[in-house]
Amino acid sequence: MADPRNETVSDPNEEIMRATYRALREYGYADLTIKRIADEYGKSTAAIHYHYDTKEDLLAAFLDFILDRFKDAVHEVETTDPEQRLELLLDKLLVDPEDHHDLLVAVLEMRSQAPYKERFSERFRQNDEYVRYLLRTVIDHGIEDGVFNDVDTEHVARALMTIVDGARTRAVVLDEDCALATARRTAEEYVTARVVADD
Amino acid sequence: MADPRNETVSDPNEEIMRATYRALREYGYADLTIKRIADEYGKSTAAIHYHYDTKEDLLAAFLDFILDRFKDAVHEVETTDPEQRLELLLDKLLVDPEDHHDLLVAVLEMRSQAPYKERFSERFRQNDEYVRYLLRTVIDHGIEDGVFNDVDTEHVARALMTIVDGARTRAVVLDEDCALATARRTAEEYVTARVVADD
Repeated sequence: MADPRNETVSDPNEEIMRATYRALREYGYADLTIKRIADEYGKSTAAIHYHYDTKEDLLAAFLDFILDRFKDAVHEVETTDPEQRLELLLDKLLVDPEDHHDLLVAVLEMRSQAPYKERFSERFRQNDEYVRYLLRTVIDHGIEDGVFNDVDTEHVARALMTIVDGARTRAVVLDEDCALATARRTAEEYVTARVVADD
Repeated sequence: MADPRNETVSDPNEEIMRATYRALREYGYADLTIKRIADEYGKSTAAIHYHYDTKEDLLAAFLDFILDRFKDAVHEVETTDPEQRLELLLDKLLVDPEDHHDLLVAVLEMRSQAPYKERFSERFRQNDEYVRYLLRTVIDHGIEDGVFNDVDTEHVARALMTIVDGARTRAVVLDEDCALATARRTAEEYVTARVVADD
């Protein structure tokens, strides 16, 4: 994911999203306020409320914003070779987030609120479904090409996302430097053992 | 893990822990108050404050209580056969929590606060280190007996805990009924492919 702080923008919604990103990194979810986002935005709280009624509305929009950015990053994966494409997808999921530890912290707080906030849970589900769809598609493609075993693609996609979500949680809760690298290696071992066809 | 609600106890600390467990299941972490725990305990808030100054003190003790219960449950695993013992450990980690969904919800809220609360993070780290120690020990035992491959036991323990933590997070955030079962199957596939020696 490109760093959202370093780009020139003019859309006010996008500017508010970037301000939210900076405020979330600085204060975390629990201590986030519209006032703090407005300070990052450089305008009044009224300028935020013009677009979003509540902090929850704004954060639901922020989750959409993150998902859109993830989709853009995935579209940059240009190769159609299934083995390479699966590797690059796993890199997007497990290597790129290393530069965004503060965001992982804030997102885990939002994730933990999913049981209480329907708008959060539906977005996390939508995000997960989208990534599993990408994984299934590339695995199906590899099966058709004869380079992958005839695996249960739905299960493999869920297995890989279990490893991804484990890494995201461990990086935050245990503050483990190696959490993402361990998960990347585990995903690699899993794919090599179960998915990639023997020559 | 045995259901902590169904046991006869007399130790006041243990009674407070059970009351905390019930209150956490009902209200979650964010809406938990000493008053609500006292109501479950059937005594005044002063009776709680006699033992614990703050909600955070009490919840740190609660995390110790859960870890102790987990240790007790693991000690019930009587077999010393490494393959069976590894399977039973994975069952304790990935099958037993199915009956404790509300606890998974409350614990994920506490986990998400680990970056802000040192007493939470040190307990989650201690818990994780203990379980990885158990996993390493059984894997080393299997390597000595020649039934497991000569794997990097530290990495395998971390890989399995990544799958466990992924399942715990997905069961809560996505409210996925299959999260734990998917992770159990993934752990099994990983162990079969990487750890268990070919005959």
